[in-house]
Amino acid sequence: MVEPWQDTTLPAHTRAADLLARMTTEEKTAQLASVWIGADTDGADVAPGQHTYASRSAALEALLPYGLGHLTRPFGTVPVDPAEGAERLAGLQRAIRAGNRFALPAIAHEECLTGFTAWQATVFPTPLAWGATFDPDLVGEMARGIGASMRSVGVHQGLAPVLDVVRDARWGRTEEAIGEDPYLVGTVGSAYVKGLEAAGIVATLKHFAAYSASRAARNHAPASIGPRELADVILPPFEMAIREGGARSVMPAYNDIDGLPAHAHPQLLTQLLREEWEFTGTVVSDYFGVSLLEEAHKVADGEDAAARLALAAGVDVELPAARCYTPGRPLDQADLDRAVLRVLTQKCELGLLDPGWEPEGTGGAPVDLDPPHLRDLARRVAEESVVLLANDTGVLPLDDGLRIALVGPLAEEQAAMLGCYTFPRHVGVHHPELPAGVEVPTLAESLRAAFPGSEFLAGPDGADVVLAVVGDRSGLFGRGSSGEGCDAEDLQLPYGQAEMLDEVAASGVPFVIVALSGRPYALGRWAGRAAAVVQAFFPGQEGGPAVAGVLSGRVEPSGRLPVSVPRGPGGQPASYLAPPLGMNGFPSTVDPTPLYPFGHGLSYTSFEWGVPQCEAPELPTDGETTIRLTVRNNGERPGTEVVQLYLHDPVGTVARPEVRLVGYVRVPLEAGAEAEVHATFPADLAAYTGADGRRVVEPGALELRVASSSARVHHTVPLALTGPVREAGPGRRLRCELRVK
Amino acid sequence: MVEPWQDTTLPAHTRAADLLARMTTEEKTAQLASVWIGADTDGADVAPGQHTYASRSAALEALLPYGLGHLTRPFGTVPVDPAEGAERLAGLQRAIRAGNRFALPAIAHEECLTGFTAWQATVFPTPLAWGATFDPDLVGEMARGIGASMRSVGVHQGLAPVLDVVRDARWGRTEEAIGEDPYLVGTVGSAYVKGLEAAGIVATLKHFAAYSASRAARNHAPASIGPRELADVILPPFEMAIREGGARSVMPAYNDIDGLPAHAHPQLLTQLLREEWEFTGTVVSDYFGVSLLEEAHKVADGEDAAARLALAAGVDVELPAARCYTPGRPLDQADLDRAVLRVLTQKCELGLLDPGWEPEGTGGAPVDLDPPHLRDLARRVAEESVVLLANDTGVLPLDDGLRIALVGPLAEEQAAMLGCYTFPRHVGVHHPELPAGVEVPTLAESLRAAFPGSEFLAGPDGADVVLAVVGDRSGLFGRGSSGEGCDAEDLQLPYGQAEMLDEVAASGVPFVIVALSGRPYALGRWAGRAAAVVQAFFPGQEGGPAVAGVLSGRVEPSGRLPVSVPRGPGGQPASYLAPPLGMNGFPSTVDPTPLYPFGHGLSYTSFEWGVPQCEAPELPTDGETTIRLTVRNNGERPGTEVVQLYLHDPVGTVARPEVRLVGYVRVPLEAGAEAEVHATFPADLAAYTGADGRRVVEPGALELRVASSSARVHHTVPLALTGPVREAGPGRRLRCELRVK
Repeated sequence: MVEPWQDTTLPAHTRAADLLARMTTEEKTAQLASVWIGADTDGADVAPGQHTYASRSAALEALLPYGLGHLTRPFGTVPVDPAEGAERLAGLQRAIRAGNRFALPAIAHEECLTGFTAWQATVFPTPLAWGATFDPDLVGEMARGIGASMRSVGVHQGLAPVLDVVRDARWGRTEEAIGEDPYLVGTVGSAYVKGLEAAGIVATLKHFAAYSASRAARNHAPASIGPRELADVILPPFEMAIREGGARSVMPAYNDIDGLPAHAHPQLLTQLLREEWEFTGTVVSDYFGVSLLEEAHKVADGEDAAARLALAAGVDVELPAARCYTPGRPLDQADLDRAVLRVLTQKCELGLLDPGWEPEGTGGAPVDLDPPHLRDLARRVAEESVVLLANDTGVLPLDDGLRIALVGPLAEEQAAMLGCYTFPRHVGVHHPELPAGVEVPTLAESLRAAFPGSEFLAGPDGADVVLAVVGDRSGLFGRGSSGEGCDAEDLQLPYGQAEMLDEVAASGVPFVIVALSGRPYALGRWAGRAAAVVQAFFPGQEGGPAVAGVLSGRVEPSGRLPVSVPRGPGGQPASYLAPPLGMNGFPSTVDPTPLYPFGHGLSYTSFEWGVPQCEAPELPTDGETTIRLTVRNNGERPGTEVVQLYLHDPVGTVARPEVRLVGYVRVPLEAGAEAEVHATFPADLAAYTGADGRRVVEPGALELRVASSSARVHHTVPLALTGPVREAGPGRRLRCELRVK
Repeated sequence: MVEPWQDTTLPAHTRAADLLARMTTEEKTAQLASVWIGADTDGADVAPGQHTYASRSAALEALLPYGLGHLTRPFGTVPVDPAEGAERLAGLQRAIRAGNRFALPAIAHEECLTGFTAWQATVFPTPLAWGATFDPDLVGEMARGIGASMRSVGVHQGLAPVLDVVRDARWGRTEEAIGEDPYLVGTVGSAYVKGLEAAGIVATLKHFAAYSASRAARNHAPASIGPRELADVILPPFEMAIREGGARSVMPAYNDIDGLPAHAHPQLLTQLLREEWEFTGTVVSDYFGVSLLEEAHKVADGEDAAARLALAAGVDVELPAARCYTPGRPLDQADLDRAVLRVLTQKCELGLLDPGWEPEGTGGAPVDLDPPHLRDLARRVAEESVVLLANDTGVLPLDDGLRIALVGPLAEEQAAMLGCYTFPRHVGVHHPELPAGVEVPTLAESLRAAFPGSEFLAGPDGADVVLAVVGDRSGLFGRGSSGEGCDAEDLQLPYGQAEMLDEVAASGVPFVIVALSGRPYALGRWAGRAAAVVQAFFPGQEGGPAVAGVLSGRVEPSGRLPVSVPRGPGGQPASYLAPPLGMNGFPSTVDPTPLYPFGHGLSYTSFEWGVPQCEAPELPTDGETTIRLTVRNNGERPGTEVVQLYLHDPVGTVARPEVRLVGYVRVPLEAGAEAEVHATFPADLAAYTGADGRRVVEPGALELRVASSSARVHHTVPLALTGPVREAGPGRRLRCELRVK
């Protein structure tokens, strides 16, 4: 007989509720628990405190009779051959099913920040590079590919994307974020979510919220932030990724927000997320996040209190393993049922409740997690993400045959290509005997391939040009200069590379700065002295050829800065999202104006921007208008311009950023070609949180600035909003569509 | 006939209301206006944009027929002989009285941050030095003396104290603040207010609020801060200075708080200040603050809107001159009446409405603004404020007769002694031909006097010891390294002084770092290498002898750090008021642990701390308890210990600082002497703003840590609060009294 919870014709929620009603309290609690197999098997921590924590968590054997909610990182804890890992995971699922009376399997989750965090899987560029592409469609395609790989070996949920808006680039996790603008983060992040979800993988939005706004950009430090800044800067990407992206999971942040830890924040996890945004998926804790309520935030007096507090706030699942959410823990029944229902509903949606479900395994057949089409996607993202910041003397692209001095240790290192959540840097670093698993040419190797006729020298002497490679080594918790826990005290280039650039500059040989980094660094000291500057953000396994391709001209540079590049190393935090008072250096001796502004990026060709036409410059507060604009490649090479729209709102009830991004589109153009860009601007995008705390669109004057960066405006389109104040409700539009005709 | 408003037997408020009822709208508005005489008379700005602004403001002649609320800076705009200034001011008051039909004079206000900002007036240490004394009584005595000087020449209101709690020492105005702890700022600041008010001068609390929490510590940048941090860190000093200090004026801050400019913030200026704290004095705008609503914050579309917005929020008087609050401006009548009533009530309290009131003038008799008793107060404050940070090898005090290398240009400069609001640095700097007006010995001069038997050398060669003098030049808006508008990108010593210290350290001669600065600087690079470190914060005209006295041993060092001294130059903002998560450098590569913590300071003797006795360690949430403790000077010299009490609250509903100061007292002891310290701790001091936003005292365990700095705890006193949760209402106690028996 098929019970209602097994009846695939019924809605998931109904089936889950039926199953819930059959469960004991212990069985329910076990659905909120996870087990981290292999976390204590060797000396290598992929998370701090992993071993201690693992030893204090409920063991698989103890949980099996009740069932199990989640399985933690089956591929990203210790290296495993993909086919073997899939088989092991399938075996584990069979054991889990055999252990509980409903034969329920667990949801297996894995990291996928820069591709599937598994050995031999394609390593994609880091999210800051996705931001630099200004190409959500391509990012979505990439995510779909990543998701398919994960599904093929039995993984159900991916712990990405990071939707934190960069507020202070000293933060070590800047590389994991998409940029400093919420619209860019929201649109690119939502595309990633859509792609992952389209492959059947549950996307997990993190870190909810304000993790990037921590004091002095220190990992886990408190976020000093008020409700307006939270609503207008930090939260919009999450809202977009839920409403438009369809994300099915959310992970709270480690930090407290004005004192209240995100893992104990009912306003955030329940009132905003569930009631206002109508999110129906699961909230999974960040690793150890429930325990930290007791042990670090000191808002819970013991494990019981921590469990009850987090559960009441809206944390459904404890990761990475059950220390507080353990069978036998006294929990509020209503809170427990609420969380379990969400987990079971998700399992149902994933097919895990269906009669006949079996873990697929691979039957021992080899698994290719780095197939040609994924490598090709990795290459395309890498190529689109390289930003040409300066080319004052037109030295780029470089001709083949020159004598090239290649300086800087990072030119020879894979660590300069790979973000901190890539398998090689995240797990592989603990297993130095293990091959990387994928081919990751260094920049030096890629340059030798790209310039077969050139002689490469180790120093400027006798060179025609110097390529000075600077940037970061990615790593975790002090094992690098960028990455989780690798926060910086300032934005000076690390490892003595500033001094190295001084020496290069002193040589008198024309030099090109090539930055391969996880965050922007202060480059003002060499501005005007460097012949050219190229920036890439951990561009992944295809990053070497991509950067070399831009240098050689094989690839037309088309990336744009997702974060401002500062002039000097101090003066953080800084963001282009600043109100006019105190923005331009007066009345302070500290001028926050960046060296290269948000949205900046050059091409090897040039573009002519036509005057934009707006048929209806007057529109109601709930209306929209259309702007048309012609862009022409008036140079002699193909190239891609990125048309950017910024909103300037002259008067409001609170201080607002002078400009903010509200739309953008890539416009690829052959030499001499032109295209018409159509932008549909909904008045909803003028919404901001006013003096009374409501998010509203107000009537009055507006300016749309048609620009090639946040600081370079080509044309201004005045608009007038008419009609009543519009409250920004659930039905409002979140994006300005730009299309190339 | 005496009208009711002239009847001195009636309450001030009644008289003011009677007068208000007789006024025209123009006469009312003129009471909210000020005139800045002399602001446009020469090329020297004491405030940025002063000239432009002055030219756009209502002129005295235009206002006279309606009357005039305020007179701006009669002594601190251009240099004037005190007696002549008093006569001029009296003449101006006569002209103002003659111009309006009620013969009302204006309230004359002047700066008094480091003493009366007038030529030839005693220059006291900067507020950061007051904080370092941990001696509210002495600061109160100083303020009373300052106030008496101001009253003697016809000034009614002083624009001090600054009660901003330091949140990021890069802020240029750090020198103007009292410290990084709200209890220290509140107690020392309230003592200053009481002293000034006791002399009949209206004290002005500024800057209300969160000015010190501006982004990256840039002057005028937005304050990213939430309501809990605002309530628990930023606002308490203001509340104490109003409730206990009796301050009669408040000045809003320039910045916005989470988007809402303080000058347009009714929750702050009306709901909190008036309704909750029952403040009845005046709110006077910061200079140009009303105009900035239009011109920089962009929350008002024109002068009319700016005036109406500020007035509605609760800004009663526009300073420094009337640009928006001008007769003829359409204003809300109820808002107007409310503000004018406050101004008239204050004028009545000051005697300005009394029949027979005449400006006093001085009849041409000379005025001494730097009399011996004020110089003596300046000396005592300076002496108590010098902090001995390290004396690893016991090199201090220095014997006379040594060969002393004195290095560092600041040793020879008055600018290293005087804060940015002292007359010489604030006004005198624009009149280089003018003598300072008071004697300000440099450190070099003071050392030569203190060590008559010593030979002074210009470099380490042949020296027994090096005194390496480093620090700041005070100034405004870029004319110094510390002071209003002189924000720093990091906490590296300016002017190449770090490199100078490197050279000194390399010489191999024992060296003492003497920091004369307006903010703490990173000293970790020389920690353990310097034989000793002495810190003074712009100690005023008697600062040279005071610092020299500590170096020679004539003065026993007794200052304590009001701000932490960091190890490295980056990593700001930082405060000792940090919750445990992310505090100790894990899981971040940036460790915010300071080199010298808040409250730290050494003596030339040593102290033995007895075990504290607490008779009633269990107390109700509305109760109090007493702790007794013996402190003994077990060294061979006299000295002063500062007993500090810190509160640690193990569990709460939000993340709270690991410790915070709740009481302190100076304990001066002869060699071998001992004293008993009695502390009366009210449970009210455990109040904090909880998860639901209410400020409450909760039952549960507490720890009082008896300490000689925030990081050096001698004993811990466990307490248990019992009874119901207590809401922190108006009647609650704000301080823990410590007395020396």
